[in-house]
Amino acid sequence: MASLVGNVLIGQSGGPTCVINQSLVGIVEEAVGKREVRNVYGAVHGIKGVLEERLIDLGRESKETLEAVAVTPAAALRSVRKKPTREECERALAIFQAHDIRYFFYIGGNDSAETAHILNELAVAKRYELRLFHVPKTIDNDLRVTDHCPGFGSAAKFVACATAGDNLDNRSLPGIKVNIVMGRNAGWLTASSVLAKQHEDDGPHLIYVPERAFSIDAFIADVDRVYKQFGRCVIAVSEGVHTADGKLLLESKEVDSHGNVQLSGSGALGDHLAGVIKQRLGEKLRVRADTFGYLQRSFAGVWSEVDAAEAREVGRTAMRAALGGEHAHGSIVMKRAAGKDYAIRYEVTDLKNVAKETRPMEPVYLAGDNGVTQAFVDYARPLLGKLPTLRRLSDFPVAKKLS
Amino acid sequence: MASLVGNVLIGQSGGPTCVINQSLVGIVEEAVGKREVRNVYGAVHGIKGVLEERLIDLGRESKETLEAVAVTPAAALRSVRKKPTREECERALAIFQAHDIRYFFYIGGNDSAETAHILNELAVAKRYELRLFHVPKTIDNDLRVTDHCPGFGSAAKFVACATAGDNLDNRSLPGIKVNIVMGRNAGWLTASSVLAKQHEDDGPHLIYVPERAFSIDAFIADVDRVYKQFGRCVIAVSEGVHTADGKLLLESKEVDSHGNVQLSGSGALGDHLAGVIKQRLGEKLRVRADTFGYLQRSFAGVWSEVDAAEAREVGRTAMRAALGGEHAHGSIVMKRAAGKDYAIRYEVTDLKNVAKETRPMEPVYLAGDNGVTQAFVDYARPLLGKLPTLRRLSDFPVAKKLS
Repeated sequence: MASLVGNVLIGQSGGPTCVINQSLVGIVEEAVGKREVRNVYGAVHGIKGVLEERLIDLGRESKETLEAVAVTPAAALRSVRKKPTREECERALAIFQAHDIRYFFYIGGNDSAETAHILNELAVAKRYELRLFHVPKTIDNDLRVTDHCPGFGSAAKFVACATAGDNLDNRSLPGIKVNIVMGRNAGWLTASSVLAKQHEDDGPHLIYVPERAFSIDAFIADVDRVYKQFGRCVIAVSEGVHTADGKLLLESKEVDSHGNVQLSGSGALGDHLAGVIKQRLGEKLRVRADTFGYLQRSFAGVWSEVDAAEAREVGRTAMRAALGGEHAHGSIVMKRAAGKDYAIRYEVTDLKNVAKETRPMEPVYLAGDNGVTQAFVDYARPLLGKLPTLRRLSDFPVAKKLS
Repeated sequence: MASLVGNVLIGQSGGPTCVINQSLVGIVEEAVGKREVRNVYGAVHGIKGVLEERLIDLGRESKETLEAVAVTPAAALRSVRKKPTREECERALAIFQAHDIRYFFYIGGNDSAETAHILNELAVAKRYELRLFHVPKTIDNDLRVTDHCPGFGSAAKFVACATAGDNLDNRSLPGIKVNIVMGRNAGWLTASSVLAKQHEDDGPHLIYVPERAFSIDAFIADVDRVYKQFGRCVIAVSEGVHTADGKLLLESKEVDSHGNVQLSGSGALGDHLAGVIKQRLGEKLRVRADTFGYLQRSFAGVWSEVDAAEAREVGRTAMRAALGGEHAHGSIVMKRAAGKDYAIRYEVTDLKNVAKETRPMEPVYLAGDNGVTQAFVDYARPLLGKLPTLRRLSDFPVAKKLS
């Protein structure tokens, strides 16, 4: 393809992550100063900002600001959950034309890839020359094609550190603890609770993901068995768990324009499960529930350095691919090299391959209905980067003197 | 007082913190090798472990293990919530005698200080020669006499980082967000949500603590006003807020042996407040609630380096005081030096001065019914140590081209 000269526009969409700004900065740094690029703009609140023509000039930001923004959680451009209508896509293209936008990057998950795909189809149909790339991010790790998603490693690190600390707290003051982890369709993040586990009696003792049908009877039997064995029980439950007939344990009324039901931002599922445990196993048991909530994707100052570097590189790759001319549009995917050393290469796949549908955990990663395999640990561990060192006392016994 | 030769026993009690093991290691390192000290023991699960004679030999732990344990959250000796009866105190003294325990250190909050006080009164009455020290820890920061409590700075850092990230998440996807923070009797930790705030429009926009009567009508009016001003609202609410007549918003049935009602380990208060906001201000509003829960006191890998160093020094000071002979018993307190540079000196106060009763936030730290003052920020900021750098884009506007 011939080289294309014009302006660059970047948007961020969907639930933010702790490293989503790394991808933004990666695109900007590859764009600024290139012969084909006049200006580098950002759309405030994603496609909503495009439609409202709320654009900002990213090319004027200092390198120092950009680097500080890169390590700041949540969408620096601000985000949106919006699936544009046909008319809105036409309006977006009119805005692109008015501002001579020839490169558009949409950083987001599967819903944002769908938005990018719809917009791209219209641009192609209208013969508006546009290089349009979806830049992946999601803490849920549920995009297809790619080995894993930028944003996941940092959220997984948060969940692993939270669970490891909570396990020690539970060992200090024993009881039954239910932890609700984000993950609407896929259990990747919930499964990651296992990653700081060191000893056989450490929690999480039980892990429930949406890939397996959830039975309250089996759950109670599992908890009872673990509690009898260890005198305590730490449980990780995905917010998206559902029964064999596909019903969520608790239904919410709130639905977004992509058709997603609200799950996060409430402690109801954890409290419900804690209530059932008390009811079935004994009102006097010490049963507690925490819902890790938005902290999983936004906690300031905790991220995976591996994830941060990859999120940056995914942004850079998207800009390079757009300039390279081999692909007019697509989504960036990460492929893991075979062999025991962890290494990633970056490629382009078609937008339709990542739009809309999600990727569940493969069976090889799941152990029965309440656990994960070593294969999952091997898959996920490199993505979290450095984890804190945790140590127990040796518990050298002192002989009793009284009866 | 004459020097006293015998064994040292250490226990940890109450809700753990991320730096409670620093105090443990501080006592051990000051004890090992001292002429008056034969062995250094730990009681597993505090006073419960004493009564069950579950003692372990801390003197045999390697320096490397102790240093790794020091940076591990939660009670390495394991903890307990238990107020011993008169008979149990007599049994504890019998165990002390059998093991020649002449130095006892109880690391805990106000309830643990009460336990230490009761035990000490009995030892004095029975003329059993014992040096008994309470070593302060509590994320609640509600011990009397001391400037602040070991454990608070790290929990406050967690709350500040969680709130700062959540504020950015809320800026990305605007709405009303309720965050429930630990703090049964005092609002210190909830107030700390303000400490990573940078811009005038940053959350937390509203802060509610137990020191001020909570009115649901005033709360709704506050939220409505902030939401109208900023288009979003981030709120920090202490789990211990109550109405003017002293009633908690939601009552729990669970009470421990010190008479404390269970507040943590449930998302009910946050969900309740989110529900009232929707009901009063509009069902279509995006309203979410998170309860920070046990992560505040146990999250692995996040602590204040200032807090960690002070928790270590409090432990060392307790052991030195016990050997020094000036005090047979007491609790360690921190006094802040006057002047603008932050500096602490460590002193001993009577057990009765810190037992049972708690310290609320002083009026100088509270601004009206829904905020904190600059005096609070100045008081608390040094305790959190280094906080992450967060940065916004400059938002250089691009002129509109369409109407």
